[in-house]
Amino acid sequence: MNEIALIQRIRARAAKAPFLTRGIGDDCAVIVPPRNADLLVTTDLFLEDTHFRRGTAPPTALGYRALARGLSDIAAMGGTPLAYFVSIALPEWACGHWLNDFYKGMRALADKAGAVLGGGDTTRGQKLLCDLMVLGHAPRGKALRRDTAKPGDVIYVSGELGVEVASKRVRFEPRLSLGRYLRENRIATACMDVSDGLALDLHRFCLESGVNAKLRDPLPLAKGVPAERALTHGEDYELLFTASPRRRVPATFNDVPLTLIGMIAAGKPGRITLNGKPLAPRGWDPFDL
Amino acid sequence: MNEIALIQRIRARAAKAPFLTRGIGDDCAVIVPPRNADLLVTTDLFLEDTHFRRGTAPPTALGYRALARGLSDIAAMGGTPLAYFVSIALPEWACGHWLNDFYKGMRALADKAGAVLGGGDTTRGQKLLCDLMVLGHAPRGKALRRDTAKPGDVIYVSGELGVEVASKRVRFEPRLSLGRYLRENRIATACMDVSDGLALDLHRFCLESGVNAKLRDPLPLAKGVPAERALTHGEDYELLFTASPRRRVPATFNDVPLTLIGMIAAGKPGRITLNGKPLAPRGWDPFDL
Repeated sequence: MNEIALIQRIRARAAKAPFLTRGIGDDCAVIVPPRNADLLVTTDLFLEDTHFRRGTAPPTALGYRALARGLSDIAAMGGTPLAYFVSIALPEWACGHWLNDFYKGMRALADKAGAVLGGGDTTRGQKLLCDLMVLGHAPRGKALRRDTAKPGDVIYVSGELGVEVASKRVRFEPRLSLGRYLRENRIATACMDVSDGLALDLHRFCLESGVNAKLRDPLPLAKGVPAERALTHGEDYELLFTASPRRRVPATFNDVPLTLIGMIAAGKPGRITLNGKPLAPRGWDPFDL
Repeated sequence: MNEIALIQRIRARAAKAPFLTRGIGDDCAVIVPPRNADLLVTTDLFLEDTHFRRGTAPPTALGYRALARGLSDIAAMGGTPLAYFVSIALPEWACGHWLNDFYKGMRALADKAGAVLGGGDTTRGQKLLCDLMVLGHAPRGKALRRDTAKPGDVIYVSGELGVEVASKRVRFEPRLSLGRYLRENRIATACMDVSDGLALDLHRFCLESGVNAKLRDPLPLAKGVPAERALTHGEDYELLFTASPRRRVPATFNDVPLTLIGMIAAGKPGRITLNGKPLAPRGWDPFDL
């Protein structure tokens, strides 16, 4: 096999879209952006032995997951995905069916989300590593952000926290339609996705907005999962958002619960309490050794 | 150290730009695209022990090089860079000054090219690995491509081939102003950058355009480098382009020679001859083992 043949295999399976005027096969992909839109860009590393282990899940599920993580970032901005780009280093064992299935898993999700494969890079590697970039868009100046929460806003989270502790699920649903709903209806004053655990992500959220947060039970925890695990394990991929206390927020959106979990307050940025006691900003941090 | 502190270090050193309305610190970067522009997207992996070895070059030079490879792809489309995104996995040894200097090397080049750091991803890794994505733009429908060369077009290459064989240079100049010049003056009918060796890259170029190529001596080889090495070693980062035979092409652009090296012909796509003899499409191919 050579690189031309490998890229040809990937290219033959890629979807087409009118806005992707040049995809795989050139020095750059060429994309016609929507009118009056801001672009959203997110990248996520997906590394063997850091983010997944070989053999623990089928490659279609890993491909799905690699892309879903990026789509969750687009969801958090209230955006719509356009295209994804896959940089991948392949060990010998991954060059055959594994690769086809990995891309098939990404495509299954991408087709549902309206995104197309725009390109990427390929090389050999000792371990499988992948960097997935997603390009999306939102109406000019309307993307949801983390730095716009205000004291007095109330805090919501979608779904349940700690689901992955209980179930070892591999596939999760990026909250794209919820994110757009929160933006279009001007419900959210700020938003982010919860990927590294609520305790750590809410801390980051508060640092960006220069505020602190007071949480109170009951939190929407997955059944049978202790709060400590549920708040720090990560991999929830739910949306954390704030809203004005005067804003009516539905109890569910497409059967996903939206739970009021606390309030934003002024004071030392980043500080979080749960039922009045300090909650440490712990969670998934690759550098916290 | 934790990830928040690491990202804060990177963020504090990042440039600002009016079109980057949200940079590092959110789920996605937010970019206002230029009016009536197409977007150009390219990603390049830069891996320890594949693309560089630790200790063989200062981190500022490696950062420069990692970004320059992506800018060379933007140059090949006749584009202008906007922003770059760095996904990086860091071993222990790289978390201190090395990291600062690596980003400093990228920024020195980015400032000259008009690009800003928009975001990325960070994690720990056994070896250093980096994926660098560059977002650029070109006027709607005007980007140079590889698939538009026609039989009868003449073939040019900028600069000299095989310079890295002779000099072990670490820094090279991405041909951004040349690419724009070729596009704005409608000189190039097709274009790509030569990164994996002329023999292999011209083969890819011809496959995309469905044509073949006849080269003839003298080729612009770096002094003292045998043609075989110069055509297959790679790392030239020069522009390969075609033009109508009726088009006047200057002998140099900003002191960089533009050399006529052959002609595009109809026939079996991808076939290349040099002085009438077949030239094998060999070059840098990570999968050709």
